[in-house]
Amino acid sequence: MGGANVSSIRVVKQLLEANKDCSDEVRGILAGKKVFAINIMAAPGAGKTSMIIRLIEKLQPHYKVAVIEGDIAGQIDAEKLDKLGVPVVQLNTSGACHIEAMSMKKMLDYFNLDDIDVLFVENVGNLVCPAEFEIGEDMKLAIVSIPEGDDKVVKYPLLFTKADLVVFNKFDMMRFFDFDDQQAEKDVLFLNPQAKVFRTSCQVDDGIGALYDEVADRIGTKLEED
Amino acid sequence: MGGANVSSIRVVKQLLEANKDCSDEVRGILAGKKVFAINIMAAPGAGKTSMIIRLIEKLQPHYKVAVIEGDIAGQIDAEKLDKLGVPVVQLNTSGACHIEAMSMKKMLDYFNLDDIDVLFVENVGNLVCPAEFEIGEDMKLAIVSIPEGDDKVVKYPLLFTKADLVVFNKFDMMRFFDFDDQQAEKDVLFLNPQAKVFRTSCQVDDGIGALYDEVADRIGTKLEED
Repeated sequence: MGGANVSSIRVVKQLLEANKDCSDEVRGILAGKKVFAINIMAAPGAGKTSMIIRLIEKLQPHYKVAVIEGDIAGQIDAEKLDKLGVPVVQLNTSGACHIEAMSMKKMLDYFNLDDIDVLFVENVGNLVCPAEFEIGEDMKLAIVSIPEGDDKVVKYPLLFTKADLVVFNKFDMMRFFDFDDQQAEKDVLFLNPQAKVFRTSCQVDDGIGALYDEVADRIGTKLEED
Repeated sequence: MGGANVSSIRVVKQLLEANKDCSDEVRGILAGKKVFAINIMAAPGAGKTSMIIRLIEKLQPHYKVAVIEGDIAGQIDAEKLDKLGVPVVQLNTSGACHIEAMSMKKMLDYFNLDDIDVLFVENVGNLVCPAEFEIGEDMKLAIVSIPEGDDKVVKYPLLFTKADLVVFNKFDMMRFFDFDDQQAEKDVLFLNPQAKVFRTSCQVDDGIGALYDEVADRIGTKLEED
């Protein structure tokens, strides 16, 4: 986001308001089509793509899944996901550090929403800006990886205040890093008492089951609504 | 940074131009006072604070050092640095995802610049936005940590295009992660043939010597100018 003088604050406020309106519009479209959208947010290299792959592996027998891959540049992650045989659309933000609702809305045109139950959106790797922009999602999933350190929750509070689920990933690396997961969980719950915290390792496929159960439960609740 | 409609692009351009003017002003002030400023940029948890601490340990016998600690919120890192007995000023960006030249200029008032040779600026943990904002620095140092993965250079090209020095940190973790450091170095040099690449581990104090030599060489060149 921009700087702190009065004129830029006004512009940022306008951008956020326009984004909110568009986010509501996206939410309406997704509700009409019975699509459950998951916004995945984390720092670069925390394991967003790996997490999406692990969850898709478990969701695929039950749901039709698709992915929007947000990146500043390139399509490395989209290529990884393509191997799963699910529809993947690459969204290059051309330098922007987050996905906005307007881009999300445009992306929906690339999919047949009647044929999708669950839509993952991998946001740009960034703990700051993505948290400010609603994109019409049903659920926000934030990841902190163990090598990043346990102070990330305190240092980037907005994301953890807004996240529905918070995952400590690369948990198999705990023995090599000084990460106090009990304290980090307390820090999350202090900011956001409704959040649920999970511990996973996508690399060695550990802890995904409990996370999947929670995700599937929320998907089921929405898709079974009248 | 803001979104992609015409009005927000215009505003962003104005912000960047105003930032450039202010950055030139800061550069002039620092040149007048013979202060060498180093802008440290990386994703959250890559080891920015640890890198600053390791470099200060080696610089302290030769130079008077100070630090500006940029964070969205909190002062965890400033407290760590305070133990080194160097002047540290905490800059909380109140949600902004990068430091701008205007904030940098204001921060200079908190120091006695006549009594400083080297000023570290730890930018907000973010691979995207800090790269767009010059802050009057003499050198940009970008860090990628091994657990983040070797695709970060390709996925966040602007920072690596602009960095003078690029450091692969947490290099002692190489055996646990699938990080092709030769390829990542090639990716850096493809974007930025002038960049120098280093491999370090701040945790186990490995590889800092070569990096220090390069940093000290650049500091010496500026401070010995007439």
